[in-house]
Formats: sequence, structure tokens, C-alpha cells
Amino acid sequence: MKKFVNDPKEFVPEMLQGIAAANPDTLKYVPEYNLIMRADAPSDDKVSIVQGSGSGHEPAHVMIVGKGMLDAACPGDVFAAPPMDYVLETTKLLNSAKGVLHLINNYSGDRMAFDMGREMAEAEGVTIGTILVDDDVAVKDSTYTVGRRGVAGNFFVIKSVGAASEHGADLDDLVKLGERVNSVTRTMGMALTSCTPPAKGSPLFELGDDEMEMGVGIHGEPGRRREKLASANEIVDELVEATASDLPFQKGDDVALMINGLGGTPISELYLLYGRAYDQLKGRGINVRKSYVGEYCTSLDMAGCSVTLVKLDDDLVSLLDAPAEVANRIF
Amino acid sequence: MKKFVNDPKEFVPEMLQGIAAANPDTLKYVPEYNLIMRADAPSDDKVSIVQGSGSGHEPAHVMIVGKGMLDAACPGDVFAAPPMDYVLETTKLLNSAKGVLHLINNYSGDRMAFDMGREMAEAEGVTIGTILVDDDVAVKDSTYTVGRRGVAGNFFVIKSVGAASEHGADLDDLVKLGERVNSVTRTMGMALTSCTPPAKGSPLFELGDDEMEMGVGIHGEPGRRREKLASANEIVDELVEATASDLPFQKGDDVALMINGLGGTPISELYLLYGRAYDQLKGRGINVRKSYVGEYCTSLDMAGCSVTLVKLDDDLVSLLDAPAEVANRIF
Repeated sequence: MKKFVNDPKEFVPEMLQGIAAANPDTLKYVPEYNLIMRADAPSDDKVSIVQGSGSGHEPAHVMIVGKGMLDAACPGDVFAAPPMDYVLETTKLLNSAKGVLHLINNYSGDRMAFDMGREMAEAEGVTIGTILVDDDVAVKDSTYTVGRRGVAGNFFVIKSVGAASEHGADLDDLVKLGERVNSVTRTMGMALTSCTPPAKGSPLFELGDDEMEMGVGIHGEPGRRREKLASANEIVDELVEATASDLPFQKGDDVALMINGLGGTPISELYLLYGRAYDQLKGRGINVRKSYVGEYCTSLDMAGCSVTLVKLDDDLVSLLDAPAEVANRIF
Repeated sequence: MKKFVNDPKEFVPEMLQGIAAANPDTLKYVPEYNLIMRADAPSDDKVSIVQGSGSGHEPAHVMIVGKGMLDAACPGDVFAAPPMDYVLETTKLLNSAKGVLHLINNYSGDRMAFDMGREMAEAEGVTIGTILVDDDVAVKDSTYTVGRRGVAGNFFVIKSVGAASEHGADLDDLVKLGERVNSVTRTMGMALTSCTPPAKGSPLFELGDDEMEMGVGIHGEPGRRREKLASANEIVDELVEATASDLPFQKGDDVALMINGLGGTPISELYLLYGRAYDQLKGRGINVRKSYVGEYCTSLDMAGCSVTLVKLDDDLVSLLDAPAEVANRIF
């Protein structure tokens, strides 16, 4: 296994310690619940926004905790939902007079942990709203999912509700906003290689040297089909077609375009893909108003990418433009 | 070859087109010279800062062009110095009444291209200053270098002279500043895997499944030694020892600590390394005042990392804290 790892069981806690050590003024690590939270949260002036999911998708979600984004993230182990009691304790710790918002990617394990954690926290008097993210157009149901999967598009839900919550929006309004953003967001990904979970020590699935998986999930779940490796342009054209035709996006639409790397793909290749996706959208009369190129939601060290399109209006653009501060930054 | 690529010869131009398409208001692509430049450069109110190097190290340098950073970057092909006439034309295009600053990583090919480009531009009346970056402590001379190599530490030189130039600093002062920052910056890297240049289509060098290369260069050049794969802690401890003992950094020093990914390593692993490096420095009484975790200077899809330490004073901290805007950002 060619990874930086000590004891695989300590992989997630050691990563979380590193995040907190690099951000001592703004973030806090609570080891009992695998929790990364804003040092200044909770505040009774704003709804607390909490996301939990398996680890292995960094920067989602532990590295996008901060002002204007998440108030806390409680990850499980690699590709495993957070334990229900972590969700409960995180929710109680983040309790605010304005309530707590749970953002959940649509996976059965995450939903179960959050449903149970929510019920128990509500029994203790916490007011909770829930948004489900399911932006992946690749498949209807999947290995770990009933319905569509939640993938890189959750960045846009987080960014918009994060900005609105800083402006004091109420819980009900945030739920409506998050559902609206999710409803205009579409993603599809693909893998050039498998990925290696630290505890497994070998690739999660096999993919031939001349093969790729179109529509792959972020835990290596099968997508639409496996086929011969194609050129960068052929790949991105299919991803653009799959996402654009799903809403469908139409001539004259303003969109955000995200090219997300899955963990093992250099940013040079992501920009090459971006250029082609941009041209393809332009050819359809679709106007790219906001651009996102880099790693937002990964699958450990998988080489691969996803394309996300978000239909924009002026309100959403101003939320996406609002300032935010997270661990995942270069300066 | 498991990469996103069309015609390998078009890899760099297609990437550059993508960068420009994603940043239409702030960046300009000049295809004749492989040039990415600020749309608002040059300005006679500031020295123009230009870096050129081989491609394959992204985000360095084409994705860190922008306000407070580089005014332009003219890359060569993957792992190849920019042609001398690209350096010349870039320098002329960026000419400012305050002069042009060339930032050069210490590789023989880059130095030759910039020396000749400089001479020809000076003959045409351009005033030029030069800073050589050579932060890599791994080896004294190397495959492509007389003297130490320039690697990820060049980020700190760029960030500081970029900030000072926005405040109107003169060319001579920028040269002195850049030399001062380079003189307090130390880096060492290591590789878990090789990397695959698009035009070659196969790994640049062979590294066994149970081997790693300590002190590797960013073009796959040999480092200090090849040895059995070690744990994350053992690896980062050696990199911290190599960099900290070189200046040497001493008890009571304030430092910036950068954990840089070489292209194929997920950010989760980089934060795990960061946590250990931070603890090691703390144990030595060295105070980490600024943190940088992510990809700054890569080697295509190489799995690996480097550790950079910079000795800080208040002046340098304020330059590092100054605002900057580049393509490589998440929001």
C-alpha cells in the first residue's frame, strides 16, 4: 500500500488532529466524536450547520468547516457512516436557539445514523431541519443507496446555506434554500483507477489498465458501465451530456461548472477537462457564470473526475460569492 | 496511461486554455508563448513578476498568476524549460516602467533560457532583476542542477515579492526581499510512486511496490537514497529533521510549515503528515505561526510529499498574510 499511514485504525483521528493543529484559532477537534467544529460555534444568532459522512472524501467535509460553510462535521471511519451517537452528541454540542441543520448525502448508512441521531436529539429538545443531497445522475439506485447518490454537488448546498445562515436566515428558510439548490444541481463522475482504503491496504475494486468506469460512485460503487479508456474530450463530453440533459439545462441558462478531482488526478488534467466542458456548454448556448476546478469531494486516491452543473440565478450567485473561510485554502 | 489527455502534444496548451476559460475576467492566455498573464498587467505602477519553468508542477506556476502573486508565467512543455524566445517575448509584453522581476527555480535549463532571454530583453531596453530559488536540501548537485534545486519553497518567495510589489516596492528591494526569503526557506521531498508524463505514456522511473525515494526531485530525479517503505511518522520525521537541521532552525524560532502534495496524494494524508510535523517542531521548541497544507508544487501524478520550513519575522508574516487572488482557489 503506497500511502502515508501509521496504524490504519488511527488514520482518521490523525488526519483530524492535523486539521485542528493547522487551524488553532478557528477550528476545534473533539476526539470523542470524531468532531471538527468551528471554535466559535455554536452561536444563538445563527443556525448551526452539521454534515456527517464517511471519511475518505476530503476536503469534504472536515476541511470545509468554517465561517460561511459548515459549523461542524462528524465523519465516520473511511467510507463508513458516522456512528449514531456521534451524530447525537455533535447535534447537542452545536445546539443553537435558531436550531440545527443536518446536511446528509443520500446514502442508506448516513440516513440511518442521522435519522436516529435526530430523533434522540429532538427528544432532548433540539430543533432540527434536514436536507438530503442527491445530485448524482449516474444511477437511480446504487450499492449503498435508494435513489440518487449525493456527491460533489453538495459543495453548492453547503456554500449557499452557509452564506445564508451567516446572514441570520431561519431554519425553515435554510431547508427551503438547500432543497432548491439541490434541485438545480447535477453531477456525474468517472474513474480511471480504483482507490485504496488504508484499512484494506489494497485496491477496493479492480479496473483493467485499459478500462474506465463511467458514472462511478465515490465509494467505488459501479456506475453506468465499464468500458475502454477514452480520450479526455470523449470522457468530458459524456459527463457534460449526462448532467446537462438531466435537468435539462437549456440555451440561455446561467450555470456554475465544477470539475472535481477524485483524489489522484493532478489539477493540470482537471483544467484540461474544464476547457473542453466550457466549450461544450458554450456550444449549447449555456453560459458559465461561476467556475470551480479542483478537489471538492474525493474518493481517497482514485484517479478520476466529476462534472457538476448548477443552474444559477442572481440570489444563488450572491450566496456563492459571499466570503467564507475553511481549512482547505492555499494562502 | 491512466490520464486525462487527448493528443499529448496539446496537453499544455489545452490546460492553459482551461485556466483562461475559468478566469475570463482576471487572466489572459497568449498561445504564441504558452503565456498566462494577469489581464490587467503590465502596470507602470508596479514591477512585473514573471516565472517560467517546465509544466507538470501545477498549480505552480500558471495557476498562481494573479493579484498579489505572479504577473505572468510562461511554462515550457512538461518537465522542459520554456524556450528562450518565450522568455524574451513574455518579458517584453510585461515590461513596466518599474522593471521586470524574473523568478527562476535553480535548474540548468531554466537558467539558460532566462539568462539568454534576459540578455536579449535588456538589449531592447527592459530593466530586469533576477531571483534564483534553491530551497531543496536533499542534494547538493542533481541531474538537472548545479547547486541545490528549487522546489515548493518558491511559493513563499512568490507570495512575499508579489505582496511587496502590490505596495509599490522597487525592483532592487524586491530582489533583496526574494533573496532574503529564499535564504530562510528549506524543503525536502520524497516519493511513494513515480509519475507519468503524457508524452511518455509510462512511468518516468521505476520504484518497487515496497520502496520509496527520500529526497526525490520534482522531475523524478534521484534523491538521497531509495529504501524500504516506512510509516507516515518515520517519513515525516526524517523530512522535518533534514529541513530543520539545515538552516538550522532553533528553539524559539517562528516558522511557516508547508506540507506539499506531489500530485497523487490525497489531502487527508497530507493533514495526517502535518499533525506529526507540527508535533515534532513543537517538541523542538519551534513555533509554527503559519500553516500550508495542500498542493503547491507537484510532479504530475506522483504520490509523495515535501516539507518546507520558512523562518518568519513580523515583516514576512504581514507579506504572507496580504490578500492575493489566483486560479487555484476553492471559492
